[in-house]
Amino acid sequence: MIIDKDTLGRYESRYRARLINSLAGVRQAMLIGTRSKAGVSNLAIFNSLIHLGANPPLWGFICRPDTVQRDTLTNILETNQYTINYVVTADYEKAHQTSAKYDKGVSEFDACGFTEYNHVDIDAPFVAEAPVKVAMKLEQKVDIAINNTILIIGSIQHIEMDDAMISSDGFVGLDHVDALACAGLDAYYETRLINRLTYANTNQWPEKLT
Amino acid sequence: MIIDKDTLGRYESRYRARLINSLAGVRQAMLIGTRSKAGVSNLAIFNSLIHLGANPPLWGFICRPDTVQRDTLTNILETNQYTINYVVTADYEKAHQTSAKYDKGVSEFDACGFTEYNHVDIDAPFVAEAPVKVAMKLEQKVDIAINNTILIIGSIQHIEMDDAMISSDGFVGLDHVDALACAGLDAYYETRLINRLTYANTNQWPEKLT
Repeated sequence: MIIDKDTLGRYESRYRARLINSLAGVRQAMLIGTRSKAGVSNLAIFNSLIHLGANPPLWGFICRPDTVQRDTLTNILETNQYTINYVVTADYEKAHQTSAKYDKGVSEFDACGFTEYNHVDIDAPFVAEAPVKVAMKLEQKVDIAINNTILIIGSIQHIEMDDAMISSDGFVGLDHVDALACAGLDAYYETRLINRLTYANTNQWPEKLT
Repeated sequence: MIIDKDTLGRYESRYRARLINSLAGVRQAMLIGTRSKAGVSNLAIFNSLIHLGANPPLWGFICRPDTVQRDTLTNILETNQYTINYVVTADYEKAHQTSAKYDKGVSEFDACGFTEYNHVDIDAPFVAEAPVKVAMKLEQKVDIAINNTILIIGSIQHIEMDDAMISSDGFVGLDHVDALACAGLDAYYETRLINRLTYANTNQWPEKLT
Protein backbone atom coordinates (compact mmCIF):
# COMPACT_ATOMS: atom_id res chain seq x y z
CA MET A 1 0.00 0.00 0.00
CA ILE A 2 0.99 3.63 -0.51
CA ILE A 3 0.30 6.20 2.20
CA ASP A 4 0.82 9.73 0.92
CA LYS A 5 1.16 12.92 2.96
CA ASP A 6 -2.53 13.82 2.64
CA THR A 7 -3.66 10.37 3.80
CA LEU A 8 -1.29 10.58 6.78
CA GLY A 9 -2.78 13.95 7.68
CA ARG A 10 -6.31 12.50 7.72
CA TYR A 11 -5.50 9.65 10.14
CA GLU A 12 -6.82 9.86 13.72
CA SER A 13 -4.02 11.47 15.75
CA ARG A 14 -3.12 8.54 18.02
CA TYR A 15 -3.20 6.10 15.08
CA ARG A 16 -0.86 8.41 13.14
CA ALA A 17 1.47 8.89 16.12
CA ARG A 18 1.71 5.12 16.68
CA LEU A 19 2.33 4.45 13.00
CA ILE A 20 5.07 7.04 12.54
CA ASN A 21 6.81 6.40 15.85
CA SER A 22 6.86 2.62 15.46
CA LEU A 23 7.85 2.86 11.80
CA ALA A 24 11.00 4.72 12.88
CA GLY A 25 12.20 1.36 14.09
CA VAL A 26 13.78 -0.48 16.96
CA ARG A 27 16.08 1.43 19.31
CA GLN A 28 17.89 0.69 22.55
CA ALA A 29 15.68 1.18 25.62
CA MET A 30 17.24 3.13 28.48
CA LEU A 31 16.29 4.61 31.80
CA ILE A 32 17.46 8.16 32.46
CA GLY A 33 18.11 8.90 36.13
CA THR A 34 18.10 12.43 37.53
CA ARG A 35 17.67 14.17 40.88
CA SER A 36 15.64 17.32 41.52
CA LYS A 37 16.97 20.27 43.54
CA ALA A 38 14.61 19.11 46.29
CA GLY A 39 16.46 15.78 46.31
CA VAL A 40 13.78 13.61 44.72
CA SER A 41 15.13 10.90 42.41
CA ASN A 42 13.51 10.52 39.01
CA LEU A 43 13.67 7.70 36.48
CA ALA A 44 12.12 7.68 33.00
CA ILE A 45 12.33 5.45 29.95
CA PHE A 46 13.72 6.91 26.72
CA ASN A 47 14.56 5.34 23.39
CA SER A 48 16.01 8.19 21.35
CA LEU A 49 19.72 7.91 22.18
CA ILE A 50 21.88 9.31 19.39
CA HIS A 51 25.59 8.71 18.96
CA LEU A 52 27.09 12.09 18.01
CA GLY A 53 30.80 11.43 18.23
CA ALA A 54 33.61 9.73 20.12
CA ASN A 55 36.15 12.52 20.55
CA PRO A 56 34.82 14.16 22.65
CA PRO A 57 32.42 11.33 23.58
CA LEU A 58 28.99 12.86 22.94
CA TRP A 59 25.51 11.34 22.95
CA GLY A 60 22.21 13.11 22.49
CA PHE A 61 18.57 12.34 23.13
CA ILE A 62 15.26 13.97 22.24
CA CYS A 63 12.99 15.49 24.86
CA ARG A 64 9.37 16.44 24.37
CA PRO A 65 8.55 19.14 26.94
CA ASP A 66 4.83 18.37 26.78
CA THR A 67 5.10 14.85 28.20
CA VAL A 68 5.88 13.06 31.47
CA GLN A 69 9.53 13.38 30.54
CA ARG A 70 9.52 17.05 31.61
CA ASP A 71 10.77 16.13 35.13
CA THR A 72 13.84 14.60 33.53
CA LEU A 73 14.43 17.74 31.46
CA THR A 74 13.88 20.09 34.42
CA ASN A 75 16.31 18.15 36.60
CA ILE A 76 19.00 17.97 33.90
CA LEU A 77 18.81 21.72 33.29
CA GLU A 78 19.08 22.34 37.06
CA THR A 79 21.88 19.92 37.90
CA ASN A 80 23.66 19.44 34.52
CA GLN A 81 23.90 15.74 35.35
CA TYR A 82 22.06 12.56 34.41
CA THR A 83 22.64 8.84 34.18
CA ILE A 84 21.82 6.45 31.32
CA ASN A 85 20.98 2.92 32.43
CA TYR A 86 20.37 -0.07 30.17
CA VAL A 87 17.58 -2.51 30.97
CA VAL A 88 17.68 -6.31 30.88
CA THR A 89 14.83 -7.80 28.85
CA ALA A 90 13.37 -9.50 31.96
CA ASP A 91 12.68 -6.03 33.42
CA TYR A 92 10.68 -4.67 30.47
CA GLU A 93 7.42 -4.29 32.38
CA LYS A 94 9.10 -2.37 35.20
CA ALA A 95 10.86 -0.14 32.66
CA HIS A 96 7.57 0.59 30.86
CA GLN A 97 5.95 1.47 34.19
CA THR A 98 8.37 4.44 34.58
CA SER A 99 6.40 6.13 31.77
CA ALA A 100 3.35 6.54 34.07
CA LYS A 101 2.71 10.11 35.23
CA TYR A 102 3.80 9.90 38.86
CA ASP A 103 3.64 13.06 40.99
CA LYS A 104 6.82 15.13 41.16
CA GLY A 105 7.44 13.99 44.76
CA VAL A 106 7.38 10.28 43.85
CA SER A 107 10.58 8.40 42.96
CA GLU A 108 10.02 6.01 40.07
CA PHE A 109 12.80 3.85 41.55
CA ASP A 110 10.47 3.01 44.45
CA ALA A 111 7.23 3.03 42.47
CA CYS A 112 8.52 0.72 39.72
CA GLY A 113 10.81 -1.55 41.70
CA PHE A 114 14.32 -0.48 40.70
CA THR A 115 17.16 -0.07 43.19
CA GLU A 116 18.89 3.30 43.42
CA TYR A 117 22.68 3.24 43.38
CA ASN A 118 24.71 6.39 43.98
CA HIS A 119 28.31 7.28 43.26
CA VAL A 120 30.04 9.89 45.38
CA ASP A 121 31.16 12.03 42.42
CA ILE A 122 27.86 11.99 40.51
CA ASP A 123 24.74 13.96 41.47
CA ALA A 124 22.25 11.70 39.69
CA PRO A 125 21.10 8.20 40.65
CA PHE A 126 22.03 5.03 38.75
CA VAL A 127 19.88 1.91 38.42
CA ALA A 128 21.66 -0.84 40.37
CA GLU A 129 20.13 -3.56 38.15
CA ALA A 130 21.43 -1.98 34.91
CA PRO A 131 24.10 -4.04 33.10
CA VAL A 132 25.50 -0.78 31.69
CA LYS A 133 25.53 2.48 33.67
CA VAL A 134 26.73 5.73 32.12
CA ALA A 135 27.04 9.13 33.82
CA MET A 136 26.53 12.13 31.56
CA LYS A 137 27.23 15.86 31.88
CA LEU A 138 24.97 18.28 30.02
CA GLU A 139 26.91 20.05 27.26
CA GLN A 140 24.29 21.68 25.06
CA LYS A 141 20.52 22.12 24.71
CA VAL A 142 19.44 22.49 21.11
CA ASP A 143 15.91 23.80 20.58
CA ILE A 144 14.29 22.28 17.50
CA ALA A 145 11.92 25.07 16.59
CA ILE A 146 10.03 23.18 13.87
CA ASN A 147 8.06 21.14 16.44
CA ASN A 148 9.24 22.38 19.88
CA THR A 149 11.31 19.32 20.70
CA ILE A 150 14.70 19.59 22.37
CA LEU A 151 17.94 17.80 21.63
CA ILE A 152 19.91 17.31 24.86
CA ILE A 153 23.61 16.74 24.20
CA GLY A 154 25.81 15.35 26.94
CA SER A 155 29.38 14.10 27.32
CA ILE A 156 30.20 10.70 28.79
CA GLN A 157 31.85 11.06 32.21
CA HIS A 158 31.84 7.52 33.57
CA ILE A 159 30.89 4.03 32.34
CA GLU A 160 30.25 0.94 34.49
CA MET A 161 29.89 -2.48 32.86
CA ASP A 162 31.28 -5.98 32.97
CA ASP A 163 34.74 -6.28 31.33
CA ALA A 164 33.55 -9.35 29.43
CA MET A 165 31.16 -7.20 27.35
CA ILE A 166 34.05 -5.45 25.56
CA SER A 167 35.75 -7.20 22.63
CA SER A 168 39.49 -6.77 22.11
CA ASP A 169 38.85 -4.08 19.46
CA GLY A 170 36.52 -2.02 21.70
CA PHE A 171 33.16 -3.31 20.40
CA VAL A 172 30.48 -3.69 23.09
CA GLY A 173 28.00 -6.52 22.49
CA LEU A 174 24.82 -5.45 24.30
CA ASP A 175 23.10 -8.72 23.37
CA HIS A 176 25.54 -10.49 25.74
CA VAL A 177 23.60 -8.96 28.63
CA ASP A 178 20.14 -9.27 27.04
CA ALA A 179 19.80 -5.49 26.78
CA LEU A 180 16.23 -4.45 26.01
CA ALA A 181 15.28 -2.65 22.80
CA CYS A 182 11.95 -1.04 21.96
CA ALA A 183 9.92 0.61 19.21
CA GLY A 184 7.31 3.31 19.51
CA LEU A 185 5.93 3.88 22.99
CA ASP A 186 4.83 0.36 23.91
CA ALA A 187 6.64 -2.41 21.99
CA TYR A 188 9.62 -4.19 23.54
CA TYR A 189 12.21 -6.22 21.64
CA GLU A 190 15.15 -8.51 22.17
CA THR A 191 18.06 -8.46 19.72
CA ARG A 192 20.45 -11.08 18.39
CA LEU A 193 23.78 -10.43 16.68
CA ILE A 194 23.88 -11.79 13.12
CA ASN A 195 27.53 -10.89 12.56
CA ARG A 196 30.14 -8.19 12.47
CA LEU A 197 31.73 -7.35 9.14
CA THR A 198 35.14 -6.03 8.10
CA TYR A 199 35.55 -2.43 6.91
CA ALA A 200 33.97 -2.04 3.47
CA ASN A 201 36.36 -1.41 0.56
CA THR A 202 35.34 -0.71 -3.02
CA ASN A 203 37.50 -3.51 -4.39
CA GLN A 204 36.52 -6.28 -1.98
CA TRP A 205 33.30 -7.37 -0.29
CA PRO A 206 33.16 -7.48 3.49
CA GLU A 207 34.18 -10.57 5.42
CA LYS A 208 32.57 -11.88 8.57
CA LEU A 209 34.51 -11.07 11.73
CA THR A 210 33.30 -14.11 13.67
CA MET B 1 34.84 -2.26 35.50
CA ILE B 2 34.66 1.53 35.66
CA ILE B 3 35.87 3.63 32.74
CA ASP B 4 36.15 7.29 33.69
CA LYS B 5 36.52 10.27 31.37
CA ASP B 6 40.32 10.37 31.63
CA THR B 7 40.64 6.67 30.82
CA LEU B 8 38.34 7.12 27.80
CA GLY B 9 40.53 9.99 26.62
CA ARG B 10 43.64 7.79 26.74
CA TYR B 11 42.20 4.98 24.57
CA GLU B 12 43.49 4.56 21.02
CA SER B 13 41.11 6.55 18.83
CA ARG B 14 39.55 3.69 16.82
CA TYR B 15 39.13 1.58 19.96
CA ARG B 16 37.38 4.52 21.67
CA ALA B 17 35.18 5.23 18.64
CA ARG B 18 34.11 1.58 18.40
CA LEU B 19 33.39 1.39 22.13
CA ILE B 20 31.29 4.57 22.32
CA ASN B 21 29.43 4.01 19.06
CA SER B 22 28.54 0.37 19.79
CA LEU B 23 27.67 1.18 23.42
CA ALA B 24 25.01 3.59 22.14
CA GLY B 25 23.06 0.46 21.24
CA VAL B 26 21.11 -1.23 18.51
CA ARG B 27 19.26 0.93 15.98
CA GLN B 28 17.30 0.30 12.80
CA ALA B 29 19.51 0.02 9.72
CA MET B 30 18.40 1.99 6.68
CA LEU B 31 19.62 2.92 3.25
CA ILE B 32 19.24 6.56 2.27
CA GLY B 33 18.74 7.09 -1.45
CA THR B 34 19.53 10.39 -3.17
CA ARG B 35 20.29 11.70 -6.65
CA SER B 36 22.96 14.24 -7.59
CA LYS B 37 22.29 17.20 -9.88
CA ALA B 38 24.31 15.31 -12.49
CA GLY B 39 21.78 12.47 -12.22
CA VAL B 40 23.93 9.92 -10.41
CA SER B 41 22.05 7.81 -7.87
CA ASN B 42 23.56 7.39 -4.42
CA LEU B 43 22.82 4.92 -1.66
CA ALA B 44 24.36 4.89 1.83
CA ILE B 45 23.70 3.02 5.05
CA PHE B 46 22.69 5.04 8.13
CA ASN B 47 21.57 4.01 11.59
CA SER B 48 20.79 7.29 13.33
CA LEU B 49 17.10 7.75 12.50
CA ILE B 50 15.33 9.86 15.13
CA HIS B 51 11.57 10.13 15.56
CA LEU B 52 10.87 13.82 16.19
CA GLY B 53 7.09 13.98 16.01
CA ALA B 54 3.98 12.77 14.23
CA ASN B 55 2.12 16.01 13.53
CA PRO B 56 3.74 17.11 11.30
CA PRO B 57 5.44 13.75 10.65
CA LEU B 58 9.14 14.53 11.19
CA TRP B 59 12.20 12.30 11.36
CA GLY B 60 15.82 13.32 11.70
CA PHE B 61 19.20 11.72 11.17
CA ILE B 62 22.78 12.66 11.94
CA CYS B 63 25.30 13.39 9.21
CA ARG B 64 29.04 13.57 9.66
CA PRO B 65 30.45 15.77 6.88
CA ASP B 66 33.91 14.19 7.14
CA THR B 67 32.83 10.71 6.02
CA VAL B 68 31.64 8.87 2.93
CA GLN B 69 28.16 10.06 3.78
CA ARG B 70 28.98 13.52 2.41
CA ASP B 71 27.54 12.58 -1.03
CA THR B 72 24.20 11.93 0.66
CA LEU B 73 24.33 15.29 2.42
CA THR B 74 25.36 17.18 -0.71
CA ASN B 75 22.55 15.62 -2.74
CA ILE B 76 19.91 16.31 -0.07
CA LEU B 77 20.92 19.95 0.20
CA GLU B 78 20.77 20.28 -3.62
CA THR B 79 17.49 18.48 -4.28
CA ASN B 80 15.68 18.70 -0.89
CA GLN B 81 14.62 15.07 -1.38
CA TYR B 82 15.73 11.68 -0.14
CA THR B 83 14.34 8.21 0.44
CA ILE B 84 14.64 5.97 3.51
CA ASN B 85 14.66 2.26 2.73
CA TYR B 86 14.63 -0.58 5.26
CA VAL B 87 16.80 -3.64 4.70
CA VAL B 88 15.87 -7.30 5.14
CA THR B 89 18.33 -9.19 7.34
CA ALA B 90 19.35 -11.45 4.41
CA ASP B 91 20.77 -8.36 2.64
CA TYR B 92 23.06 -7.21 5.48
CA GLU B 93 26.30 -7.74 3.58
CA LYS B 94 25.05 -5.75 0.57
CA ALA B 95 23.86 -2.98 2.89
CA HIS B 96 27.23 -2.81 4.65
CA GLN B 97 28.99 -2.62 1.26
CA THR B 98 27.28 0.75 0.57
CA SER B 99 29.61 2.21 3.23
CA ALA B 100 32.62 1.74 0.95
CA LYS B 101 34.05 4.95 -0.53
CA TYR B 102 32.89 4.67 -4.13
CA ASP B 103 33.72 7.50 -6.54
CA LYS B 104 31.08 10.18 -6.94
CA GLY B 105 30.18 8.90 -10.43
CA VAL B 106 29.43 5.36 -9.19
CA SER B 107 25.91 4.33 -8.16
CA GLU B 108 25.96 2.15 -5.04
CA PHE B 109 22.77 0.53 -6.36
CA ASP B 110 24.83 -1.06 -9.15
CA ALA B 111 28.00 -1.58 -7.14
CA CYS B 112 26.27 -3.28 -4.20
CA GLY B 113 23.50 -5.17 -5.99
CA PHE B 114 20.33 -3.27 -5.13
CA THR B 115 17.63 -2.46 -7.68
CA GLU B 116 16.67 1.16 -8.25
CA TYR B 117 12.98 1.95 -8.22
CA ASN B 118 11.68 5.40 -9.13
CA HIS B 119 8.36 7.12 -8.53
CA VAL B 120 7.22 9.85 -10.91
CA ASP B 121 6.67 12.44 -8.14
CA ILE B 122 9.89 11.86 -6.20
CA ASP B 123 13.34 12.98 -7.31
CA ALA B 124 15.28 10.41 -5.32
CA PRO B 125 15.65 6.67 -5.94
CA PHE B 126 14.05 3.97 -3.77
CA VAL B 127 15.47 0.49 -3.15
CA ALA B 128 13.10 -1.96 -4.84
CA GLU B 129 14.02 -4.74 -2.37
CA ALA B 130 13.12 -2.62 0.71
CA PRO B 131 10.07 -3.86 2.68
CA VAL B 132 9.44 -0.26 3.76
CA LYS B 133 10.11 2.72 1.49
CA VAL B 134 9.66 6.28 2.72
CA ALA B 135 10.11 9.50 0.72
CA MET B 136 11.30 12.50 2.69
CA LYS B 137 11.44 16.25 2.03
CA LEU B 138 14.18 18.28 3.68
CA GLU B 139 12.71 20.67 6.26
CA GLN B 140 15.65 21.89 8.30
CA LYS B 141 19.41 21.49 8.67
CA VAL B 142 20.59 21.96 12.23
CA ASP B 143 24.33 22.51 12.68
CA ILE B 144 25.60 20.94 15.90
CA ALA B 145 28.54 23.22 16.58
CA ILE B 146 29.99 21.22 19.46
CA ASN B 147 31.44 18.56 17.13
CA ASN B 148 30.52 19.70 13.59
CA THR B 149 27.84 17.12 13.01
CA ILE B 150 24.57 17.98 11.29
CA LEU B 151 21.01 17.01 12.15
CA ILE B 152 18.96 16.68 8.97
CA ILE B 153 15.22 17.01 9.64
CA GLY B 154 12.74 15.90 7.01
CA SER B 155 9.00 15.43 6.71
CA ILE B 156 7.44 12.18 5.54
CA GLN B 157 5.87 12.57 2.10
CA HIS B 158 5.06 9.02 1.05
CA ILE B 159 5.24 5.53 2.61
CA GLU B 160 5.17 2.19 0.75
CA MET B 161 4.78 -1.05 2.68
CA ASP B 162 2.65 -4.17 2.89
CA ASP B 163 -0.77 -3.54 4.53
CA ALA B 164 -0.28 -6.62 6.71
CA MET B 165 2.54 -4.87 8.59
CA ILE B 166 0.14 -2.36 10.19
CA SER B 167 -1.88 -3.40 13.26
CA SER B 168 -5.42 -2.12 13.70
CA ASP B 169 -4.16 0.60 16.09
CA GLY B 170 -1.47 1.87 13.72
CA PHE B 171 1.53 -0.01 15.14
CA VAL B 172 4.03 -1.22 12.54
CA GLY B 173 5.85 -4.44 13.39
CA LEU B 174 9.16 -4.28 11.55
CA ASP B 175 10.12 -7.75 12.78
CA HIS B 176 7.33 -9.15 10.54
CA VAL B 177 9.53 -8.37 7.55
CA ASP B 178 12.86 -9.28 9.22
CA ALA B 179 14.03 -5.67 9.13
CA LEU B 180 17.74 -5.36 9.84
CA ALA B 181 19.10 -3.53 12.88
CA CYS B 182 22.71 -2.63 13.62
CA ALA B 183 25.09 -1.24 16.23
CA GLY B 184 28.21 0.79 15.69
CA LEU B 185 29.66 0.71 12.19
CA ASP B 186 29.96 -3.02 11.59
CA ALA B 187 27.59 -5.13 13.74
CA TYR B 188 24.26 -6.36 12.33
CA TYR B 189 21.31 -7.57 14.39
CA GLU B 190 17.93 -9.21 14.03
CA THR B 191 15.13 -8.27 16.44
CA ARG B 192 12.23 -10.18 17.98
CA LEU B 193 9.14 -8.66 19.59
CA ILE B 194 8.79 -9.63 23.27
CA ASN B 195 5.44 -7.92 23.71
CA ARG B 196 3.50 -4.71 23.51
CA LEU B 197 2.15 -3.23 26.75
CA THR B 198 -0.88 -1.10 27.60
CA TYR B 199 -0.48 2.59 28.46
CA ALA B 200 1.20 2.94 31.87
CA ASN B 201 -0.96 4.34 34.69
CA THR B 202 0.24 5.12 38.20
CA ASN B 203 -2.49 3.00 39.80
CA GLN B 204 -2.16 -0.12 37.64
CA TRP B 205 0.72 -2.03 36.11
CA PRO B 206 0.77 -2.52 32.35
CA GLU B 207 -0.90 -5.48 30.69
CA LYS B 208 0.36 -7.39 27.69
CA LEU B 209 -1.39 -6.47 24.46
CA THR B 210 -0.90 -9.86 22.85
